[in-house]
Parts: sequence; structure tokens; C-alpha cells
Amino acid sequence: MVIVMQSKCLEQDVEKMINKAEKMGLRVKHTEGKHQSILGLIGDTHLFETSVFEKEQGVEKVFRVQKPFKLASRDFHPEDTIIKVKDAIIGDGNFAVMAGPCAVESEVQIVDTAKKVKESGALFLRGGAFKPRTSPYSFQGHGENGLKYLKKASEITNLPIVTEIMDTEDYDLVAEYADIIQIGARNMQNFSLLKKVGKGNKPVLLKRGLSATIEEWLMSAEYIMSEGNSEVILCERGIRTFEKALRNTLDLSVVPYVKQLTHLPILIDPSHATGRWELVPSVAQAAVAIGADGLMIEVHLDPENALSDGAQSLKPKVFDALMKRVNKQHEFNKSLGEII
Amino acid sequence: MVIVMQSKCLEQDVEKMINKAEKMGLRVKHTEGKHQSILGLIGDTHLFETSVFEKEQGVEKVFRVQKPFKLASRDFHPEDTIIKVKDAIIGDGNFAVMAGPCAVESEVQIVDTAKKVKESGALFLRGGAFKPRTSPYSFQGHGENGLKYLKKASEITNLPIVTEIMDTEDYDLVAEYADIIQIGARNMQNFSLLKKVGKGNKPVLLKRGLSATIEEWLMSAEYIMSEGNSEVILCERGIRTFEKALRNTLDLSVVPYVKQLTHLPILIDPSHATGRWELVPSVAQAAVAIGADGLMIEVHLDPENALSDGAQSLKPKVFDALMKRVNKQHEFNKSLGEII
Amino acid sequence: MVIVMQSKCLEQDVEKMINKAEKMGLRVKHTEGKHQSILGLIGDTHLFETSVFEKEQGVEKVFRVQKPFKLASRDFHPEDTIIKVKDAIIGDGNFAVMAGPCAVESEVQIVDTAKKVKESGALFLRGGAFKPRTSPYSFQGHGENGLKYLKKASEITNLPIVTEIMDTEDYDLVAEYADIIQIGARNMQNFSLLKKVGKGNKPVLLKRGLSATIEEWLMSAEYIMSEGNSEVILCERGIRTFEKALRNTLDLSVVPYVKQLTHLPILIDPSHATGRWELVPSVAQAAVAIGADGLMIEVHLDPENALSDGAQSLKPKVFDALMKRVNKQHEFNKSLGEII
Amino acid sequence: MVIVMQSKCLEQDVEKMINKAEKMGLRVKHTEGKHQSILGLIGDTHLFETSVFEKEQGVEKVFRVQKPFKLASRDFHPEDTIIKVKDAIIGDGNFAVMAGPCAVESEVQIVDTAKKVKESGALFLRGGAFKPRTSPYSFQGHGENGLKYLKKASEITNLPIVTEIMDTEDYDLVAEYADIIQIGARNMQNFSLLKKVGKGNKPVLLKRGLSATIEEWLMSAEYIMSEGNSEVILCERGIRTFEKALRNTLDLSVVPYVKQLTHLPILIDPSHATGRWELVPSVAQAAVAIGADGLMIEVHLDPENALSDGAQSLKPKVFDALMKRVNKQHEFNKSLGEII
Repeated sequence: MVIVMQSKCLEQDVEKMINKAEKMGLRVKHTEGKHQSILGLIGDTHLFETSVFEKEQGVEKVFRVQKPFKLASRDFHPEDTIIKVKDAIIGDGNFAVMAGPCAVESEVQIVDTAKKVKESGALFLRGGAFKPRTSPYSFQGHGENGLKYLKKASEITNLPIVTEIMDTEDYDLVAEYADIIQIGARNMQNFSLLKKVGKGNKPVLLKRGLSATIEEWLMSAEYIMSEGNSEVILCERGIRTFEKALRNTLDLSVVPYVKQLTHLPILIDPSHATGRWELVPSVAQAAVAIGADGLMIEVHLDPENALSDGAQSLKPKVFDALMKRVNKQHEFNKSLGEII
Repeated sequence: MVIVMQSKCLEQDVEKMINKAEKMGLRVKHTEGKHQSILGLIGDTHLFETSVFEKEQGVEKVFRVQKPFKLASRDFHPEDTIIKVKDAIIGDGNFAVMAGPCAVESEVQIVDTAKKVKESGALFLRGGAFKPRTSPYSFQGHGENGLKYLKKASEITNLPIVTEIMDTEDYDLVAEYADIIQIGARNMQNFSLLKKVGKGNKPVLLKRGLSATIEEWLMSAEYIMSEGNSEVILCERGIRTFEKALRNTLDLSVVPYVKQLTHLPILIDPSHATGRWELVPSVAQAAVAIGADGLMIEVHLDPENALSDGAQSLKPKVFDALMKRVNKQHEFNKSLGEII
Repeated sequence: MVIVMQSKCLEQDVEKMINKAEKMGLRVKHTEGKHQSILGLIGDTHLFETSVFEKEQGVEKVFRVQKPFKLASRDFHPEDTIIKVKDAIIGDGNFAVMAGPCAVESEVQIVDTAKKVKESGALFLRGGAFKPRTSPYSFQGHGENGLKYLKKASEITNLPIVTEIMDTEDYDLVAEYADIIQIGARNMQNFSLLKKVGKGNKPVLLKRGLSATIEEWLMSAEYIMSEGNSEVILCERGIRTFEKALRNTLDLSVVPYVKQLTHLPILIDPSHATGRWELVPSVAQAAVAIGADGLMIEVHLDPENALSDGAQSLKPKVFDALMKRVNKQHEFNKSLGEII
Repeated sequence: MVIVMQSKCLEQDVEKMINKAEKMGLRVKHTEGKHQSILGLIGDTHLFETSVFEKEQGVEKVFRVQKPFKLASRDFHPEDTIIKVKDAIIGDGNFAVMAGPCAVESEVQIVDTAKKVKESGALFLRGGAFKPRTSPYSFQGHGENGLKYLKKASEITNLPIVTEIMDTEDYDLVAEYADIIQIGARNMQNFSLLKKVGKGNKPVLLKRGLSATIEEWLMSAEYIMSEGNSEVILCERGIRTFEKALRNTLDLSVVPYVKQLTHLPILIDPSHATGRWELVPSVAQAAVAIGADGLMIEVHLDPENALSDGAQSLKPKVFDALMKRVNKQHEFNKSLGEII
């Protein structure tokens, strides 16, 4: 951490900062500039916020040098994290696709969809039983029944289940059925929920918040990991920007960037990113090309009558074509060497 | 709701949409344009999402004409909502200030702060017992003990308590102590929590999410109200934009705009909006000038040693000067007539 | 400037940076951290970009300590800049209002508007002869004729003229008629135009770009000033964010913040900020309350038939009421002492 | 265009709107809703702005149905635009790479770079002679000399030149040397410059503005085309969002989306999008995978000593590896069939 003092600060302000940092167990190196003094703090600075110093008299700016996350950081865990769920693996260099409807609408719907996406090569079945909806008047999901329908579909197809949790009170229920527990974008900083899933033993799929910085996203992963659960899968699903032509702005460059910062696997969700099914296949292909560990794709047997997110859901036939394409792309990628 | 069909859509696509809308209980007016057909849907369209039609073949765009919220809408409830808590009133044309530390740090801290802010004219005591923090390594609040300290301070000063809830599981506990329950920005779309406080009988202070549109904010108010609790207070605390010079970008123009849309009272939080205590007084004054119903202000006896948000907290002396100023501004405002 | 080296950089990388900085005329203080080395650079670092070092091997981050602007900085020019144009003054603690139509539509329109806004107390006449429009099919302004009409209105009312320049080629023409030359938001980083007006002797009104940071805005002022013209007036007119309910998001907190950074005066344009005339008066009042040096307001005799921006233009009668209100607010503000 | 009237508007307001639209040459279809009246306007509505109606009494919202651009629209020009410059072609299904340094620094630099990028398969040489820089103290480019050096490099390698124009006054000079004229992101809405290049006969590379919507970007293309020059190449280079970890946020999904809207070719600039050279190859590959018509890549012989943008510039060796990869990806893409 680096503290830059104001140009007109007093000597005693500088001394006060040095004492404060030393009391916190940090060592301090002092540099006197032409206009300003600079203090370099050395030690476990990830335990402290920059604001601890920013508020002090005579301080102009405080910069963080060390990253504020540690368990999620590649610096402290250089090897890729690999997550194994039943027979499916994420993060081992292969490509994992999670597919299914936005919402579980009925047993027959989810069973039929599961069969279809399995045939096309999906490794996981996704489907929402508890649905976060902007409007209280929209379909809110079938709750426990939805989980039971998912279970049925999973038993028939042997696909592990990925489903969203919205509330700490539902943890035991959801964990009974889910193989991977999803934290949705709107709950990325629901810290109570992060701690709850962090105490559990189910892998967690952590979607990036609508306006979450990459650092905040990794800090949310750190929340989960600091409670003991190290199986976190990141999922980029588009961020909120000034551009409203598509549902969100997919920040695809995060894939190679996040892989520098963390050892956790990262998936791309082109369905929520674009909000338009006809754009999903080419965006999905780009996600493979750039090195994502997998995809999350919304598939619906009858998108025109879906209870939610129909506009961005693929029909099974299009999903099948997409799978063929992304598998080829993944094979193609493996044929390429490293550039850097 | 207005459906615009694609220029090259088939006649049967148009018919299908008409049938679909009619099945949903809506009436349809059909306009054939030079390039495109337009369908006007008439009825209770706030019960449906535009996506119900957007996904259909031949549809180009769907526009909402009616607002998607109803209970929160001024159209259906023209008079201002007035909320009374003990002796304090919000939304009646007077000006309500909630003040106190970001986090409750000790009994003596909160009691002393309460006395100070009461002397200066605050109507409510704010203070966090459960703290949402970006880092798991930051101070997370004193929990139930924090609530007890707040209670003590409230008993001594007779100031009602405003404190944040982070989890549905804590509802009974928080509601036992709080007079107003705060939903923080990061939980604005924690729909489980919205429903929970909506079922309760405590007024709710609903902060705007970091990247929440005004419509989404009012839909979150609608969630609370649709469960039966109509006492919702809005609080703008700055939104997240490309500009990082200050902590957030305060969207102060929302005050007169939101007052057109809804009957709910609205407060401004200049502390979180700017992140810098020295900007708080002038921003607070502007908030009064523009017609807000009150303020939420962070006050700390010793900001330099605060466990959180010290940089944006006022010392009691500055807060006292601020209160004198905003009270004068409020008196001044009352002396002005209506322009429009 | 502070260079933070990567945790695994080589000693020779550090040495290379030290040599590089010293060749640039800077002195270097070296701090060795637990994980990383830090170099503090001392001297005229505003002449260099951080990128000069960021690209080097072994460098993790480069932070700027000194501001990148100098002529515009209050550090080097503590007193407020006061700009005098004919009998009107900006920045001397009084309140200056520029008013008039978005576009000059005819001689009679601009003359009549000028009379009206003068009567109400405006100090400057604004009006566009060259109009930046998103669509090539929209009215583009009357060009030189528009300038002549403005001149006529100015001769009759003695109001100085504020009008926009869009192209360096038009400088001589515009400067012949204008008393203050406006650079529009979309040209805030048209560096050729900034240099051109910087070489001239007319005060410049510099609007903040749609997504310009405060620092970029002040760097654009620095461009003008570095060519010799020190008479720059800043104008905040709302920034572009995810929120589309209003035309732009007014960043009103910039007023007290910018006044810390620079000695230049700052105006607020509530017309472009909100895009809705009925919100203009209360936003204008808040701008005065927060300490702006003036306002730019769109006024139109017949907004419903305006050739541009009718929705945000005030009728003279409403403008008159607004002027009464902001003048009272300004008097009220003067009656208040300093808080900090 | 669709006009939605307010729920409490008067009958005469509706009539006034109908008359107004009819005077503008539009036909009107009137739908009376339960709460609101809706007017469908039929005809050449792209000639008018929605604001023409928005400001009128009794109007709640105005929606555009037809796109506001015409010449740039695929609706009116279904076939892809193909642009041929010397022997190089853009938009014909092949893949065109423009490469070179950010700034032309010397004759030897640009000649050597040109040879290198040509060897690796670049079809165009890029390099800036006029440089838009945030700071007036940064290197501003060599101007005419820079153009001469580019010419020399072009004569030796036969690569056509792409270079930026910053000012209408420089048009004749730049057009004498350039084969393609670039409009930079900060000038995307410099309408004088758009008209100037629109009157010329050189193809124009139009970068997307930092916070330009896709619609505004295509309207800027329309400006150029409406002056007679139909050879416009779009270039996405990242947009400005809340996320500052990388230089910009690359909006890669625009590729398939823009191809629905327009017939113009589109390139991706991964160098400006990410600001980090080590991310450029994988982002470039994703750009090919998603269907872009080409790339613009910054290449520098000695990035560590570049006068600008060194951090994002590739060394020739890395560029060569990138070219091999994107060529393979392009071949791979051609081997795939259509999904939809």
C-alpha cells in the first residue's frame, strides 16, 4: 500500500501515519518528493482497506499495490482449480456446457429438455426453481417442486444440476437437490448468502454482478473461499453500460485477464449477455476461442411460450448446431500453440 | 403495450400475436404502417412483461406504455405518502434527517453520537449492526450487540432507529430493535429480502442499487408494497458510472422526477454519494433546495479512527453547522412559491 | 509518480526503470517491499504519461501523484479566475445566467428572445448558429446568418453573445460575432479546435464531454490555456450513464469538487442535463445552492415548434419565474457563512 | 413512429398531434387505449426526430419504429459493402488486418515496421501523423512529415496507408497521402469532419466513440454517406464503462448485431480495447471467431520506448504469431456452415 501525503501537509501528519501503520503491524518506507511525501507500507496489507488512511489529515491518496484478495489469487495458488461434479469436470482444459431452460416450468418440460441437451453434449442441466424477477407480478418459479422436477431429470439423464439460490433460508433445501449452487448477478454482493454457500460443500457458480468490477467479483469469490469452500466457478454474463441495444454488454476480454489474476475457472453466459437467441451461437464460439472454460446456455423446447427469457433461449435444434460448432472450435483451439 | 412487427413479417405472425394477446385478456388495435404493422394492446398490461411478445416470430420491438408498477405509482395514489415513526414524520413537507455512524462500534460511541445528533436536530439515529463489506477481512459489524447498543441510545435520546438488514434470517431480530429497516444498495434486488420486509410492519428505507434504473428501484418498492407494507422511503445514494473521482455519481435530478412518478418520500445520502466529508454540506444543501424529503448523513465522533467509512463521516461540530444550514435552506424553500 | 514493480521482477528491471526516469530529469527514491519494489519519481512528472513506464518489463502499476494539469490547477493559481465580458462578469461571486434558444431560428426569434431574457435578468444571450446534430437530416443551424441575427439581438439588448463553434475553419467567422465561444460536449476532445480557440482572445465556454472524466475535462482546459488563452469557463451538462429516464445524469457534486481542483469558474446547464423543461427550475436552484458560478438555460418563445430541443426549453414566463427564484437563492447563499 | 398520449390528455391535444403529423407528410392511425391514446405515424419518419412530438402538450412518449438511418441500413441495401483499396479488399468474406505503430515516429521506424507487418500478412499499414492526446504536453505527432514517412513505407511495401485526420483544415493534406482516412473515437461526432470526409473520395474508417451507442455510430456513418461517400468501414475499439481494469470494455457482440443492421464492414481494434499487449492475441482470435471483417493492431519495433501506446503494442514477432493464429481461425471459420 502506498500513501501519498498532501503537498502542504505537516510533518506531524506524516509521523502520525507512520505510527498508525506500524501499530497495524506494517513496516513503512518514507520517500520525500519535491511536492509530496510518499509512504510505502509493507506487510499483509490485504487485511486493511485503503480508507483506513484516506480519511486521515494530510493524506492525498492511498494506492493499493497488493491485491485485496488472497485465496482467489493466482499469486498464492498458481495451478488452475479443477472442479469435479459426478462425471463432469470444469477447468481441466476441457470445455463444459451447462444448458437448460431459464425456469423449470414442469416436470415434462425439464425432463425433455435434459434429454435433448444431453444428446447434444451438455455436461450439466441448468434450470431455475427460485427465480429473481424485476417485477413481483412475474412468474417467480416453482420452488421446491421445481427442484424435484430437476432431480427427476437428473436421475434420468445423469446430468448434474445447476440451480440458483436466492435466500440463506433455502440453503438446505437447494443443497439437497443441486450439484452446483448458482449465485445470480443481483446477489453477487449478498454477503450473507456468500457466507452461507461458503460454509457448504457444494461448488458455487458465481455470476458477475451487473455493475461489479472484476476486483469486487473476485472479492465475492474470496468471501465464499474464506468460509472454507474453495470450489468457485466464475460466470461472466454481461455488464450494464450506457448501451441498451442488447440486454447487457458482454465483457469477453475478462477471460484472459481474469485467468492472470485467479486460478478459478470461468464460464460465459451468452444468453443473458445478448438477450437475443440469434446472437448466441457466434458469441458462444468467440467465448471458446478466447479461452473460457465453458458456457451456460438457455435452451427451451418452445421459446415463444417460455415463462421467462424466451427471447434469448435456443430451440434444441439450434443448441445442437451450437454444440457441434463450439466443440469443433475447442478442438481447433487445442491444435494451436501458445503465442506468448 | 405496443407491438411493432417486422417489416417482412407474415400475416399469420400478426394474427398469432393478436390471438396471444386476446388470450391474455387484452384487447388489440391493429395499425398497418407503410413498412410495418403496429398492435396496440389495451388492458392490465402491467401484469405482463414485454418479453412475452419480444421472442415471437415476426416481432421487431415491444414498447411499454403503462408503467410496470402500480402500487408505487402516483397515477393510482396521487397524494404523498406520509410516514410516522414515534414522534418523527417523513414526507409531510417537513425535512427529516437521519444521522449517525456507518457502523455501531460500541455502546458508548453510539450513545454519545445519538446525543450529539439529536442536539443538532436529527430526527432519526442511523447505525449499522450488520455491515455489508466488499472484503471478508473488513469489520462486519457487531450484530445483535450492535442492535442492543442502538436500543440503548434510542432509549436515552428518544430517537427512532434506522438500521440495515442483510438477510431474511435476521428479520425478527432486526425488527425487534429497528424502527425503520434499511435495505442497502447491494440488496435492492434481493427479492427474498424485499418480500420479507414487505410482510412485516416496519417502514422500509430502500436505497437505490448501484446500477439500478429508476424503474427498477420503483419495482423493488412495488415488491415490498405488493406484500402489504406500503411504508417505503426511497433513498438515492449515488450510482456507479465511468467517473471514479468521487465514490459515486449522485443523481440529484431524480428528486423532482421521482416525485412525478411516485407518492413515496425520497431522501438523499450525500455521504455515500461523494465519499468525502468536506463535500457533504454543500451537497446536502442542494438536496434540500431540489426538494428532497430528508437526508441520511454519516456522523462519527472520531472519523480518523472509524472502523468504516471514516473519510465520508462528519464530526459532530460540522454536522451541527450542516443542520443549521439545511434548516435555513428548508425554511427558505418554504418561502418560495411554485414555479410551474 | 510512483512505479510499483511486479513481485517477481528482476533486479535489472528495477535498475532499468531508475535509469529511464533519471534520463527524463526525474529523481528516484527506491523502496523495497515484502512482495514488491516501489519507485517514487520526483520532479516535473506532469510532463510525462504513466504509460511511459507501464509498458516496461517488470512493472505492475504506475500511479500519478501530481495532477496531470498545471495551468488549470488551483495548486499553481490559488485565486479564482474572474472573466469579464463587456459589462458581465463570471466567477466573482455573483451569479451569471446565459439564456436563449438552442438554435437561432430567425432574426425576429432571437431578438425577441434576447429582450425577454434580458428583462428577466440574464447576463448573456446564448443561441446556436452552427448546430451539432446526431442526424444529418436534422436542422443544422443557419450558419453565418445565424451569427448576424445574434449580433442584431446583442446590439439591441447589449447582451454579450455565447455561441458554439464546430470547426477550426469557422474560427474567424465565429470570433467576429461571439463574445464567448462555446465548445460543445461532443467536441470536448477535438484537440485541433481546443488549440485554435486557445490561440484566440475570446473567452471559451468548455462543456464537459458525455463520458469525460473530470481529469480529462480539466486537461482539455489545459489544452486551451497552454496555447495562451486563460479565460476558460467550465460547464457541466450531464454525463452519459446506464440511466436513460432523463436525457443525461447531472453530476452536480462536481461543483464543490472541481472548485478544489481548479480556479476556473463553473456553470451548470440543467436543460441538457435533464432534457425536460419542467425539471429545469428545481435543478437550477440546486445548482445555485451547491455553489455554481452560473447557469446556461434554454429559453424558447414557442417550445412546441422549436427546431431543436423544444422539450427542454422554457417559455419566457417560466424562465422569468426561474430567475426570480435563483436570484433569491443566490442572495440566500450569500447570507450563509462557511461551514468548513 | 408511435406517439403515446398521456392518460389525462385532452381530445384537442390528440387532434393537434394528428394535424401536425399530417402537415409533415405522414399518415396517422389512431388507437384509443383503456388508459391512453396511441398514434401510429406512417411515412418517411427517419427525416424527423422524436423530439418534434415529445415536447407537445399531452404527449407521454414517442417511440421510433423505423431506424433513423437509411443509407447505412441493410434494409435498404441488403448486400454487404465491399471496399477495394489498391490490391486490398475489405468486406468480401476475407480477413483484412491493418497494422503498424500508434504514432509514426521516424522514417526508419515506419519503413521497418511496414516491412515486418507485410511479411506477416497485414494488408494495410496504419500509423498516426496527427495524434489526439489527452495532454497537451504529450507527443502530438509529426504532422506532414509523418505522412511523408508513411508514403515512403507504402511505396516500398505497396501497403495502402490508413491514417487519422483530426481537423477539416488538414483534409487535402491527409487525403494526398492516405488511402483510407481514419476518424478517431473522440471525433466520431465531429460532424464538420464527418461531412468533410463525406465529400471526399477516400474510404473512411470510422471508430466508435467512447460512449457512442450503436445507433449514434451508424448515424455518423450516415453523415458521411449522405454527403456522397459510401465507403465507410466501422471499427469497434472498446467503450467506456464503470470497469477500469482494462483500458476499455470491448463490446464484441456488436459484430453479429451490427451485421444485422448495416451492410458496412466492421473491424475490431483489440489494442485500444484492452490496452495490454498480452491480451491482444486471444481477443483478436475471438474477433475472427465472431465474424469481424478484420482487425486493427498496434505493432511497434520497440514498445518499451514507444512515444505513445507502448503498453498495448505488439512486437513484430508476437504480431507474426498472432497473424498465423487469426489466419488459421479464419480458415476454420470458413469451414463451418451457417447455424441459423
